[in-house]
Amino acid sequence: MTTTLYQEPWEELEAILGADDVQRLKVYFEELSPGETARVISRLREDDQERLLTLLSPEDASGLDEQVDLLGKLDAQKSAAILREMEVEEADEVRQLSQFAPDTAGGLMITEYLVYPDSFKIGDVLEDLREHTDLYAKYDIQYVYVTSSNGELIGVLRLRDLLLSPRETPLTQIMISRPVQVRTVTTLDDLQHLFDRHAYFGIPVADEQGRLVGVVRRDDVEEAIGERADRTFLKFTGIVGGEELRSMALPLRAYRRLSWLSINIVLNIVAASVITFYQDTIAAVIALAVFLPIISDMSGCSGNQAVAVSLRELTLGLVRPYEVLRVLLKEAGVGIINGLLLGVLLGSVAWAWWGNPYLGLVVGGAMALNTVVAVGLGGTIPLLLRRMRMDPALASGPILTTVTDMCGFFLVLSFATAALPWVAG
Amino acid sequence: MTTTLYQEPWEELEAILGADDVQRLKVYFEELSPGETARVISRLREDDQERLLTLLSPEDASGLDEQVDLLGKLDAQKSAAILREMEVEEADEVRQLSQFAPDTAGGLMITEYLVYPDSFKIGDVLEDLREHTDLYAKYDIQYVYVTSSNGELIGVLRLRDLLLSPRETPLTQIMISRPVQVRTVTTLDDLQHLFDRHAYFGIPVADEQGRLVGVVRRDDVEEAIGERADRTFLKFTGIVGGEELRSMALPLRAYRRLSWLSINIVLNIVAASVITFYQDTIAAVIALAVFLPIISDMSGCSGNQAVAVSLRELTLGLVRPYEVLRVLLKEAGVGIINGLLLGVLLGSVAWAWWGNPYLGLVVGGAMALNTVVAVGLGGTIPLLLRRMRMDPALASGPILTTVTDMCGFFLVLSFATAALPWVAG
Repeated sequence: MTTTLYQEPWEELEAILGADDVQRLKVYFEELSPGETARVISRLREDDQERLLTLLSPEDASGLDEQVDLLGKLDAQKSAAILREMEVEEADEVRQLSQFAPDTAGGLMITEYLVYPDSFKIGDVLEDLREHTDLYAKYDIQYVYVTSSNGELIGVLRLRDLLLSPRETPLTQIMISRPVQVRTVTTLDDLQHLFDRHAYFGIPVADEQGRLVGVVRRDDVEEAIGERADRTFLKFTGIVGGEELRSMALPLRAYRRLSWLSINIVLNIVAASVITFYQDTIAAVIALAVFLPIISDMSGCSGNQAVAVSLRELTLGLVRPYEVLRVLLKEAGVGIINGLLLGVLLGSVAWAWWGNPYLGLVVGGAMALNTVVAVGLGGTIPLLLRRMRMDPALASGPILTTVTDMCGFFLVLSFATAALPWVAG
Repeated sequence: MTTTLYQEPWEELEAILGADDVQRLKVYFEELSPGETARVISRLREDDQERLLTLLSPEDASGLDEQVDLLGKLDAQKSAAILREMEVEEADEVRQLSQFAPDTAGGLMITEYLVYPDSFKIGDVLEDLREHTDLYAKYDIQYVYVTSSNGELIGVLRLRDLLLSPRETPLTQIMISRPVQVRTVTTLDDLQHLFDRHAYFGIPVADEQGRLVGVVRRDDVEEAIGERADRTFLKFTGIVGGEELRSMALPLRAYRRLSWLSINIVLNIVAASVITFYQDTIAAVIALAVFLPIISDMSGCSGNQAVAVSLRELTLGLVRPYEVLRVLLKEAGVGIINGLLLGVLLGSVAWAWWGNPYLGLVVGGAMALNTVVAVGLGGTIPLLLRRMRMDPALASGPILTTVTDMCGFFLVLSFATAALPWVAG
């Protein structure tokens, strides 16, 4: 009788890593389906993830770019240790890219590309390609760049231009002169706009002296934009620092979430303190205690819709941070329509529930007014934060709900206090 | 004396569109900076956006792919009108692509690629390239595909392979046989995993009969992933249907946001109805009215953090919908740590504010317990919704906050009722 012990795929990987068995490691990944690879690696503890990176030789790891990304996430001391184990030439390149901010042309560019002097002819290039077939096999070749003697980029050729011209043609004769280029500090936003406008696969990157230092590819830009959209969403919901994986250590995950929650609870206490000024009113009309959380939550919802639209328009460059007034006017319309409808709905419920039309007026009126406030603030807060060079994805939500809570509590409770003889009836 | 009237760029464009001046339209866009183009078009009313599409000839519009995307957003009748005005051949292609779901290989693929029969030699291909230079100039050529006589894909060559082999070499001799291929129905998730694993620029797409019908490119997949991340965020905040632009008509914008808000307010009323059962307790301890909105909001925050992590892990394929128990255990740890800390914090505030340690215990205990509930639910609700084939980005938030509100109100008010002699003291 045999007992079959089911082993999860990451448990097998942990065993392989524990045994430092490089050969079995290679076989393991070759047999794993694409979808499983990411999932299995994500299940490893961080120290096992590092060990994996150390065990795999640079050629086996799925590409230098991804290593840089992973290195960026490890702390400095650990990355230095891993860099030491790489081959000198490749490690140099990783180190060089790490010095640029991740969402810039410098941080996104690849440094393996084909470049030839302006004295070359088509035939010279074809000969070089033939000589270095093995080396170039790993390159992502889309264009051939032509530089002057001081390293300045002066032209570009598409690979197919090489196919369609006689061997004796000088590169300078068929190249596209003064091609579009960017600097290492060019931002992701600007890269996105360039690639939206032009059907390029890649754009050459120049350093401050105008020398060609790399190529930023369309698909790396698209990927970075996708990752940024992910980060925006996570930050908005209070997952700070980008990526939380459930494979991370528990104290770290709790701490990262708590940093945002603890600010939020303080803001919540501040907002709710408005209620303490109206305890007599609540004692007279207990029904108000039912509507305070509803008004707080609904204002937050309406406001966050406007925040989401503004965050998206800011990212896409469809609105500029100074256009506060335009956004305010645009949102005011939505706020008035939705405020009226939500106010009538909630007011009717209050009237029907407690049989008091004045309670309905107080609750519905406060809901309507506060929706206008919430939508207007939600639309403009991200713009104002951007102008103050703060991160709108992170700060908009807490600021919005604090202000709309205070305002909503004040509106409904002060209305009720003013109409107390009728509302308490 | 002359008066200079400042005109916003989209006002100028509106004037050009009003005059049906195609020539001025071309000049206008040539002179516009990349960043401004998107912003200006977004400022147009929808009818002007359509007119723009109609006025620009297909060659002037920035590419067939983007037209398909835009057509997908117009309603069926209007798109048919625009399709009629396109050249017959191009319109056919747009219609064909429109029949596939947008986030599948069929919806993402291009249909302009190079394909040759298996009887061809390198020289035949080079001759064809030379003959059709003008036509192919618009193509995005990365690979050359080889098909058998029945249209089945049997091999692929990279463009550089053409450069490095003698003219008399048969394609079948140097091609990569049985290349990776997908079906028109292959999902974006699967495409993402394939491109993550392989350094391809494009993957050939076959129909149900195995015939080559298109090529899906890496950068189109990356772009679709970025757009999906955008949509997830927007849906999560209640902007349903994807993209709201402030250039859309006011009633439409109000309506789209209201559809989500009106469900939310009903759920809010249901949740708050729990409070009505404890009106006597609140009458005895008015301070509770202050803490109900705080507990509601903080539980929502803690839960939504867990929702965000689960949505992301689902999208990346790092967690499977059936792994509810694993996620629950992982989240329980975070919930207990953060619940204890938030509970102690809020309980201390209640004690200090009202000078009643029992009130602190009631409020802090409810906060702690409800945080565990919220974090556990937040982590698992997206998985359960996905298993029920519902959209977790859209439904997770409202379901989560309704349940955590009800549970939080019940916990704090039933604790207070049980401890009424001490809490009211």
